[in-house]
Amino acid sequence: MTDEPLFRELRTLLGEDRVQTDPSVLSLYAQDETPRHCRPDAVLFPASHDQVAGIVRLARQAQRPLIPRGAGSGNVGGAMPAPGSWVVSFECMNHILEFRPEDRYMVVEPGVVTDDIDKLARSAGLMYAPDPGSGAYCRIGGNLAMNAAGPRCVKYGATRDHVLGLRAVLGDGREIRTGSRTSKYATGYDLTRLLVGSEGTLAMITEATLRLVPAPEQVASIRVCYDSNSAACQAVQRVMAQPILPYALEFMDRRSIDALRDFGAAEGLPARTAAVLMVEADGSRDEVVQRMLALERALSGHGMLEIQSGFSKAEMAHLWVARKSLSHAVKAIAPRKINEDVVVPVSCLDALVQSIDELGHRYRLPIVSFGHAGNGNLHVNLMVHPDDPAEMERAADCRRALVEKVLALGGSLSGEHGIGSEKRQYLPLEFDRPSLEFMAQIKSLFDPMGIMNPGKKLPD
Amino acid sequence: MTDEPLFRELRTLLGEDRVQTDPSVLSLYAQDETPRHCRPDAVLFPASHDQVAGIVRLARQAQRPLIPRGAGSGNVGGAMPAPGSWVVSFECMNHILEFRPEDRYMVVEPGVVTDDIDKLARSAGLMYAPDPGSGAYCRIGGNLAMNAAGPRCVKYGATRDHVLGLRAVLGDGREIRTGSRTSKYATGYDLTRLLVGSEGTLAMITEATLRLVPAPEQVASIRVCYDSNSAACQAVQRVMAQPILPYALEFMDRRSIDALRDFGAAEGLPARTAAVLMVEADGSRDEVVQRMLALERALSGHGMLEIQSGFSKAEMAHLWVARKSLSHAVKAIAPRKINEDVVVPVSCLDALVQSIDELGHRYRLPIVSFGHAGNGNLHVNLMVHPDDPAEMERAADCRRALVEKVLALGGSLSGEHGIGSEKRQYLPLEFDRPSLEFMAQIKSLFDPMGIMNPGKKLPD
Repeated sequence: MTDEPLFRELRTLLGEDRVQTDPSVLSLYAQDETPRHCRPDAVLFPASHDQVAGIVRLARQAQRPLIPRGAGSGNVGGAMPAPGSWVVSFECMNHILEFRPEDRYMVVEPGVVTDDIDKLARSAGLMYAPDPGSGAYCRIGGNLAMNAAGPRCVKYGATRDHVLGLRAVLGDGREIRTGSRTSKYATGYDLTRLLVGSEGTLAMITEATLRLVPAPEQVASIRVCYDSNSAACQAVQRVMAQPILPYALEFMDRRSIDALRDFGAAEGLPARTAAVLMVEADGSRDEVVQRMLALERALSGHGMLEIQSGFSKAEMAHLWVARKSLSHAVKAIAPRKINEDVVVPVSCLDALVQSIDELGHRYRLPIVSFGHAGNGNLHVNLMVHPDDPAEMERAADCRRALVEKVLALGGSLSGEHGIGSEKRQYLPLEFDRPSLEFMAQIKSLFDPMGIMNPGKKLPD
Repeated sequence: MTDEPLFRELRTLLGEDRVQTDPSVLSLYAQDETPRHCRPDAVLFPASHDQVAGIVRLARQAQRPLIPRGAGSGNVGGAMPAPGSWVVSFECMNHILEFRPEDRYMVVEPGVVTDDIDKLARSAGLMYAPDPGSGAYCRIGGNLAMNAAGPRCVKYGATRDHVLGLRAVLGDGREIRTGSRTSKYATGYDLTRLLVGSEGTLAMITEATLRLVPAPEQVASIRVCYDSNSAACQAVQRVMAQPILPYALEFMDRRSIDALRDFGAAEGLPARTAAVLMVEADGSRDEVVQRMLALERALSGHGMLEIQSGFSKAEMAHLWVARKSLSHAVKAIAPRKINEDVVVPVSCLDALVQSIDELGHRYRLPIVSFGHAGNGNLHVNLMVHPDDPAEMERAADCRRALVEKVLALGGSLSGEHGIGSEKRQYLPLEFDRPSLEFMAQIKSLFDPMGIMNPGKKLPD
């Protein structure tokens, strides 16, 4: 009850309904997609930049951690509350503030659902290129925090590549604007891209100016089945060595195909299929035809069992059925997945997939790998039973061995999910001590009291 | 002579010939393309990352400013020595350390000439997209420092968009690596893009991992003549509102055409020509034909006098003759140009060009404007006689009025040249005090002693 005066101040600032301390509400905001939880002391729903600035001011006075939150759809604990924290949910800051198709940008609040940005852009022949799998419900603020990406990013780049400028409240209470509304900029220090991907540990973003690109007139799909992981990985490398960039280049490994079979969702695939690539081309109608031919040429080779193309919506949907079933099929293997999101140079993909197979054998774990192969970015899912401590211990050892392998291949811990609370213990494997210390100093400069999303991104 | 012990230490570190204190050498490094000069105390030619780290160590001990320098081709005083400073010339760090076409990246030292990067990339069907006008002699370190760009950037983005990772020595002597060699990355704070465009005020970059893109199979050119600046600007806006991104979209204003006429280099242009656009399309052979048609459609409209296309090298060269003569033609107007490099949202280009005309009349100055119109980025050249103090005063007032207009249109001080020593007095017009103070704190974090390129980028 000692917090009541604080909550009164917050209610004065935000309005009665925008400060929630009811246990049932707190429980709803106690976790993201990570299987851990911690109840915050309050959930706040600011409606404006000024209200966010007010929240930071009060949190600094009261020394309370602030946990910014979009849809809570992240899977690395980026929105996991800390003890005694206030969750700042951006659900009510969901307005598109400005749309200038002639200048190819849109200014949005952090609570706007990602797909809504793309939809509005398409009404003017443009698109917002980054396409996380959660696009239908995730919010752009979370995408900005984690530098989210998706299949299209193999051609168009990730969230960071599509932000022109930001408005933000730093952890020290300062309010800044970064970047510009122009498509070129060589004036100030680039704080825009520093804040993107900083996982709410430096500042709360209250507005973002997003860069839009021309929407393709048409997209077409290819599904290719191979008799081994290696044959599929080599095809990925061939595609990325020729000039036509695919609109998507997605991989499912042997274990994924096994899971689909067990789930009854592999009907259309040739019997000997051990790996599948889903590939897309985009462009004008004429361009798409030419590009499909070029991609099909690159995809064809040793170990290919079947290649099918789809140009109509119905054909494309048919080809994607297996891939769309994968998430459910994987869930049937074991009750929990530990989802790594590693990335390697694309020429090392084959070696990575082979290593993952070996790790699965060594640690006696089913490991299902799929993802954005054109970027060398795999989602490596260790399937576990959380109530089996021996298995959980093997999984922990396996994760570390995986990370070590990825780094030995010249890769990085995360391609698109970020670090959050779940991977920060591995950062010292990727960065030397001076670099980590320097990152901690950057954090201290933005957030001297350490109230911004503590326990995320950086190791202790 | 009191510096002799220091120079001995530097010679031990770098080698006898790599520490130059001869007045004739010092004079060579006393200026960049800005018409001011200041002789440094020494010019150093490090050959490795470790030697750069050693230089920073000694400079910290001796409290000497360090002025990093590529080719000295910048025009905002970015490489201008400070009194008592040591110029660090990267001419000898000119090695390409790694080229992995299969992973579409190249690791280079900062002294590599920009065009050499592109040439090597093209040997494998790739290109390094940023194409500053000085590409034949400028060095990539300078491009990284200033976030350089060029005509292709309207489609492909500027230097910052093509850097995956860096190795650098900070002003506090720390040595860090940033980013990764992968095409996606969501692990550490993005220090890569913070260092790009920081103009040597935070760190010295010793290695850069550059992203490469597929080289287009073909490029073709269009030259379009209009009867007014406004007609040309409206055509630019039409091009940027349709889906085909040009490979280049360059503008020459009425004053540019006048200068070409006076110089005898406007022969091929229709008599009533008052503005010209140079436009390019790239892609496969089939794509280029389609794209040229789409661009020609968008370029056609009110006030167009003539449109000519060229597909062969000879035809393209012919179309570009006038544009390539412009630099010489402009020099004939007055002995000095004050080159602003402003950028506005492309929908404001027409308004900007009109304002520039008004400013020319109000301040009685010839102002020649041309540049990367697809990005809303104009090089605005105030032509002056430096020995006419009244004219120079009018020019100073005119510059300020120009900057104010650009900012009122939602633009920014610099699109690609950077701030250097020459524009920093205008930063308080673009940024509020908290933002400027915060940038100064960023600078202090990287460079607590203030030895890294002092007097650049930030106001005093």
